[in-house]
This record gives sequence, C-alpha cells and structure tokens, in this order.
Amino acid sequence: MTPVDFWFDFGSPYGYLMAERIDALAAAHGRTVRWRPILLFAVLRQLGLPAPLAHAARRDYLLLDVERSARHLGLAYRQPSRFPVVTPLPARLFHVLAAHNGAAAAAFARAALRAAFRDDQALDDAAFAGALAARFDGREAALLLQQAQADGARAALAQAVDEAVRRQVFGSPFVHLDGEPFFGADRLPQIEARLAGRLAPADKDRP
Amino acid sequence: MTPVDFWFDFGSPYGYLMAERIDALAAAHGRTVRWRPILLFAVLRQLGLPAPLAHAARRDYLLLDVERSARHLGLAYRQPSRFPVVTPLPARLFHVLAAHNGAAAAAFARAALRAAFRDDQALDDAAFAGALAARFDGREAALLLQQAQADGARAALAQAVDEAVRRQVFGSPFVHLDGEPFFGADRLPQIEARLAGRLAPADKDRP
Repeated sequence: MTPVDFWFDFGSPYGYLMAERIDALAAAHGRTVRWRPILLFAVLRQLGLPAPLAHAARRDYLLLDVERSARHLGLAYRQPSRFPVVTPLPARLFHVLAAHNGAAAAAFARAALRAAFRDDQALDDAAFAGALAARFDGREAALLLQQAQADGARAALAQAVDEAVRRQVFGSPFVHLDGEPFFGADRLPQIEARLAGRLAPADKDRP
Repeated sequence: MTPVDFWFDFGSPYGYLMAERIDALAAAHGRTVRWRPILLFAVLRQLGLPAPLAHAARRDYLLLDVERSARHLGLAYRQPSRFPVVTPLPARLFHVLAAHNGAAAAAFARAALRAAFRDDQALDDAAFAGALAARFDGREAALLLQQAQADGARAALAQAVDEAVRRQVFGSPFVHLDGEPFFGADRLPQIEARLAGRLAPADKDRP
C-alpha cells in the first residue's frame, strides 16, 4: 500500500479541515499519509493560475463557507485575524524536522494548522513557530529556526513545490490516492468511499 | 417559507448533478425550488472573474472529478462530446416557458440538463432544443424558437444575469437558502443538514 499524498499550504483553512480528518480516515483503511506542505502561491504562479482569494466575491464566500464547513465536520475553527498569511517559515521548519523524523514533522504540521485556524496564532512569528517545532524535535528552537533559513530546508521546499507543479496540484488541500487526484476538503466523503471500496478508481481514459 | 434559489448554467456539468437532487431535497423539507438559469460567462465577465475552465490543469481535473462525483451520487453521467457549450438558446427557451408556467420551465430545464449530460445531446441545436421545450408547453416548437429570439426572452435572461451579479453568483451551481449562499454540487450535504436543522444558519457577522 502506497501512502496517501496530502498536499497543503500552512495558510489554507480548508487544508486545516482536511488535516484534522485525513490521518484517521487513512488509518481506518490500513493506509498511512504523507504530509506534503507546499507554498501554494508559488505552485499557482508556476502553473499560471491566479490566487484563489484575488476576488472579493470569492473571498467573502470562502470566509462564510469555511466556518460553516468546519461546523458541518464538527471541528473547532476560528478565522485568523490576519488572513491570508504567506507561509514559508512553517513549511521550511516542517522540512527541517522531516529530514530527521517524518512523524515528528507531521505532528508539527498538525499542531501548526490548529494553532493558525483554531487558536489564531501567527505562524510567521518566528518565536512562536520555532517553539512549536521544538516541541516535536529534540533540538532547540533557535537551532531549528537557523536551519529553516539554510539551503537544505529551502531546497527541500522548492523540490516539493516543483513536484506539486508536475502533478498539477492547483489548490490546497489536494490529495493523491493511488495517483487519483482529489481537490478540496469537500472531497473527504469521496476519499472515504474510495478507501472503503464503495467508489471505483476514476478511469483517466473515460471520455 | 421562501423558495430555494437554484442558479445554474445549462453548460455546467455540476449544475446537472445539483439539478438531479435539489427538488427532492427541498420537497423533503417542505420547500420549493426556484430554477434560475443564467449565462455564467456573462456573470463572470461582469464580476471580473476568469472562466472556470481557462486552465488545462483545472479542466483535466474537472473532467475526472465530475464523472466521479456523478458515480458517488449514483447518477448517470456522460461527458458531452463538445464541451464546454455556450448556452443562450436553452436559457432563453426557459424564459419563454417560464412567462406562462414556471413548473413547465423547470421541467424543461431538468430534461435539458439530462439531455446534455446523460444523453450527449447538443442544447445549441435549435431543432432539438425547440422540440424539447415544446414537450413541456402547449405551443409549437417553431413559435417557441421564434420567441426565444424576441426581446422579451433576451430581457428576462439579462435580468437574471444582472441579479446573479448583484448576488455574487460566481459559479454554477449556486444555491441561496434563506439568503445563505452555497456554491457547488458538493455542498448538497450541507444544504441537507441546513434544511434538516442540523446545521445552524451561517452568521455573516462572524469574524
């Protein structure tokens, strides 16, 4: 069984909704999840797509819809006071942790998304983000923050962005399940049906 | 009880999915549906938004996702051989019928969407669209087609487009339930929960 690929941006509220559900859903069907943080704005720029919140009508709707979607899923949600937030720092910290321990990196990502979208914490605040990363890693926050600015973390994140562009990850959250793409937290019921064998794989050769 | 407003474009495959479910869902909770065909490209142009299929990555995904979403909902679906189709003709025919009989117009719309997305019929084929409209109206197809080109039908459609712009209908399908907006066929579970009282109305004043 290959892992389920879960692509997300740390600034994506729907990414938080997916993050709260995808591990348990996969585990219930004997699958693991590979957490793949990206910088969505960089992926969209390379794909030639506009930012999702560029228009007021879409932004107004998103703010209403994400709060409603969280209630529908039974999840706590609080609209961040600053939104959207550009998120290279937590994404780089993720890669610093992932180089040692993938499970610690995923736990950090889960905690960071909760901090952003449940507790209104700013993930671009280095003191906060560094301390949070240190909770899941043996190293000191100052060292982790230093490594987050180093070439290794930058290269790992750039590589993830490049792979997302190749795989046409045009939004967050985005899931690949045995190669099949699912865009949006609202695809959770289809992902569940697919894992449970109640929904056949999409045939890419269908007309 | 005010009717549920159901906005759609006759060229929208997700509009077809919503059309197959919304009447029964509303009726189960004592509500009626007001069918509101629009020309999505005209609404988006006025809102300053790009067409949803302008990018290959999004289009590739849509073709896969709509077929999968139909299977997930238990609906027959066949990808139209010409896609997308610009749809002023069925939208104008709808308004010709609606001026006499709203229920006949809705029945025509339902049949037209099935013809397009289940039976691969071209709704911009005047002979086909006129004959289909005549099935739900006492008048001859030739007369209905003539009236579809007249000022009254054009004005009624333009008025629907203007109202859609005012209400920020930035996609198809789009539902207003007591003023609350729901975008996409994937919001059917939330619409159902909202109608059943399991989901509270979204508070537009939430942060």
